Amino acid sequence: MPEPIDAARLDLVLANRILAREGIVDAFGHVSVRDPRNRERFIMAWARAPELIEDADLLEFGLDGELRQQTDRVPYLERYIHAAVYEQRPDVMAVCHNHTLSILPFSISKTVRLRPVVHTGAVLGGEVPVWNIADEFGDRTNMLVVNLAQGRSLARTLGKGRVALMRGHGSVVAGVTIPAVVSACINMDKNARVQLQAEQLGEYTPLAPGEIERPAVAPGEAPLPDRAWEAFVRRVSDRA
Amino acid sequence: MPEPIDAARLDLVLANRILAREGIVDAFGHVSVRDPRNRERFIMAWARAPELIEDADLLEFGLDGELRQQTDRVPYLERYIHAAVYEQRPDVMAVCHNHTLSILPFSISKTVRLRPVVHTGAVLGGEVPVWNIADEFGDRTNMLVVNLAQGRSLARTLGKGRVALMRGHGSVVAGVTIPAVVSACINMDKNARVQLQAEQLGEYTPLAPGEIERPAVAPGEAPLPDRAWEAFVRRVSDRA
Amino acid sequence: MPEPIDAARLDLVLANRILAREGIVDAFGHVSVRDPRNRERFIMAWARAPELIEDADLLEFGLDGELRQQTDRVPYLERYIHAAVYEQRPDVMAVCHNHTLSILPFSISKTVRLRPVVHTGAVLGGEVPVWNIADEFGDRTNMLVVNLAQGRSLARTLGKGRVALMRGHGSVVAGVTIPAVVSACINMDKNARVQLQAEQLGEYTPLAPGEIERPAVAPGEAPLPDRAWEAFVRRVSDRA
Amino acid sequence: MPEPIDAARLDLVLANRILAREGIVDAFGHVSVRDPRNRERFIMAWARAPELIEDADLLEFGLDGELRQQTDRVPYLERYIHAAVYEQRPDVMAVCHNHTLSILPFSISKTVRLRPVVHTGAVLGGEVPVWNIADEFGDRTNMLVVNLAQGRSLARTLGKGRVALMRGHGSVVAGVTIPAVVSACINMDKNARVQLQAEQLGEYTPLAPGEIERPAVAPGEAPLPDRAWEAFVRRVSDRA
Repeated sequence: MPEPIDAARLDLVLANRILAREGIVDAFGHVSVRDPRNRERFIMAWARAPELIEDADLLEFGLDGELRQQTDRVPYLERYIHAAVYEQRPDVMAVCHNHTLSILPFSISKTVRLRPVVHTGAVLGGEVPVWNIADEFGDRTNMLVVNLAQGRSLARTLGKGRVALMRGHGSVVAGVTIPAVVSACINMDKNARVQLQAEQLGEYTPLAPGEIERPAVAPGEAPLPDRAWEAFVRRVSDRA
Repeated sequence: MPEPIDAARLDLVLANRILAREGIVDAFGHVSVRDPRNRERFIMAWARAPELIEDADLLEFGLDGELRQQTDRVPYLERYIHAAVYEQRPDVMAVCHNHTLSILPFSISKTVRLRPVVHTGAVLGGEVPVWNIADEFGDRTNMLVVNLAQGRSLARTLGKGRVALMRGHGSVVAGVTIPAVVSACINMDKNARVQLQAEQLGEYTPLAPGEIERPAVAPGEAPLPDRAWEAFVRRVSDRA
Repeated sequence: MPEPIDAARLDLVLANRILAREGIVDAFGHVSVRDPRNRERFIMAWARAPELIEDADLLEFGLDGELRQQTDRVPYLERYIHAAVYEQRPDVMAVCHNHTLSILPFSISKTVRLRPVVHTGAVLGGEVPVWNIADEFGDRTNMLVVNLAQGRSLARTLGKGRVALMRGHGSVVAGVTIPAVVSACINMDKNARVQLQAEQLGEYTPLAPGEIERPAVAPGEAPLPDRAWEAFVRRVSDRA
Repeated sequence: MPEPIDAARLDLVLANRILAREGIVDAFGHVSVRDPRNRERFIMAWARAPELIEDADLLEFGLDGELRQQTDRVPYLERYIHAAVYEQRPDVMAVCHNHTLSILPFSISKTVRLRPVVHTGAVLGGEVPVWNIADEFGDRTNMLVVNLAQGRSLARTLGKGRVALMRGHGSVVAGVTIPAVVSACINMDKNARVQLQAEQLGEYTPLAPGEIERPAVAPGEAPLPDRAWEAFVRRVSDRA
């Protein structure tokens, strides 16, 4: 039985590769996990493309976004996204920042908000809030979240939700486990693809509030095994 | 010469992998076959991603959707879709439930119905009916078909057809053989992709009623060998 | 130095696999070549998916569309497309029939004709004619070209051009060599994809008549080696 | 430590394969590098598909676009694109010409200009200029840049920018290093895909001028290691 920290590190390495394979991240984007041993720490790779991440690439950070170990590896510039979400959200144990193409049109649209339109999109929680860095930090930034003030601003927009969009940039996705965050990213992507096409057809019926809130398992029931995680892991593990 | 039950089980395993490879199902979605030995039974995998299904994953169900064998494997929550279709449709020998992305915009559109626009889409039969779970079960469900009442409601919408959409969820596809259901799913997907793009160009000519009803073989002719099935099987069998 | 017939058969096998790999054909669709030894014959596979075609699958046909050899293999139902084009077009040495998805919206649109919008789309020759089987054969067909009368009707619509669309069905593409037909199919597909997206942006500039007619090589120049064919062949030949 | 010329040649071979794998070029399109030993020379492959390029395929050219070595290999017809850009732009060390599908609708649109809408699209610099060969050379060309006069005309449209579109043809992308040009191509493609979809949703917010100009690193900072290049190289190097 692996120690929680070892299981977390293994799942984090897998999540990096899965998110790359599933098209959620490309050479950019990152995923992290809160340290199961210490709530004031989180674990994330150094600034390397997710598809290449191995255990030796993982680093430890504090909730100020700064390294807690010696290394000459360069950390992701936008680690403050993760730091601020862990700081503001005690319930969150994993975070992904990505530039998933399907949600970007919704991040810049003046008229249409990304929202649940298919049952697996319920994770979006409702209309997905859009954080516009220019609101607090002006319109001469490079749009990256490069300090804790910007990270906290984004975390305020995320609020208690699972997902927030970042105008002209990407999204942040939070969850209680790594598999939950990975699935939330993939379901966000599918929902966005469907919604964009539905917009092209005209008026459409989104999910009703009761269809968004209704939990997938009744109270007291054990959560279902994660059918998707097993498949995702297999896809990045198979060798021809 | 394999026994019909062995051929059915083999085709079912292949169908799972084919539907995954062809993008009809992802980690979710399922396909089943009526037991050739007993019309009151159907065979389907336990709640595992279709791309991973092997013969040992197959379970036997009754038309009430409940297991007919001992197992600690968890069955698909939505087995009631299959059970109800087999119950209501004596002609149907195979069923697929999927969340194919291309049909989802049509499942929520208030103005456009999925309908045959290309000759291989004739299998859709005409405007494809949309089952909205909220009509009978209210707008506070999780949109899954989790009991026989809901399954029968969906089967009523399917009626005598090959395909029904499920609002904001997916589709159910029924057929007389496993290869027929697999091809119907793939042709449904292609038709939907074309129709969505045709909508973007403006007015278009769908198939005429006579072009939908006209059978592919004249009465008395032997059905053509299934060119597509051989290719689909090869694609999931080849090793580099 | 291979005999022309052997080179033709080899290129035909390669073309089948290339057209499948490049997404022009799926399990359906076919490609043929006029017999270099006898203008009254053409060579095409039996009714098997193009991605699986090998030399042993090739059959010989006359320009009436009927077999000229003994076999228990079933030929493609729509061989009459090829027969009629070879009959009507002495300049044509290779023909492809396909259901390429990108051109199908244009085959049913009432308002937009597929036409050259990018330089590689010049092969389309201008607005691409659409053959509607219902015009001559009524609206109760299965839309397949199953006899020589239908094939000749389609060939009349093709006229002297390289491409004709078939309403709600697909296209026929003709050329002077197999590589030319393969490239024409792929360029037709790319042009269609671009044109559909350009339509979504609003008004756009198509190719001018002089940009369509202008040959790629000046008179007297040797034609350029086919850069694309080498790449296409390599893609279906490489083993990991 | 490899000589600069060897490093340049190696990166050029890799760039060819990367641009092919990433869908920026297909069998057509090309990339070059200015010779680090001689600013009046550039290096590019002969007229072969980028995915097949090896070191032995590389040739040397002068800024007049003509070969500087003996060979019976045929050079790319459009080498004058590269020659003219190197001639007009002393700062440019690498150039790519491509027919990337996503930018082609913008190259022919009468109403919409490609422009930065996502942060990685800042490399576009603003509204991307469109070079229309017909403006200077009439509407009876084959639209290819086949001499230095046409190349210089295109280079004038490119001006001091990183990217220019070529109406109904493709784009030219310039940069200070090969990895920079490769990333610029890929980011141009992603921006175009997002912008096309955003157009379908209605009005949207593009990047502000200050968000385009703001450099990714503050003055005095060392540039960040190229996370993407490592991933791109690995993708074309892995063998199953």
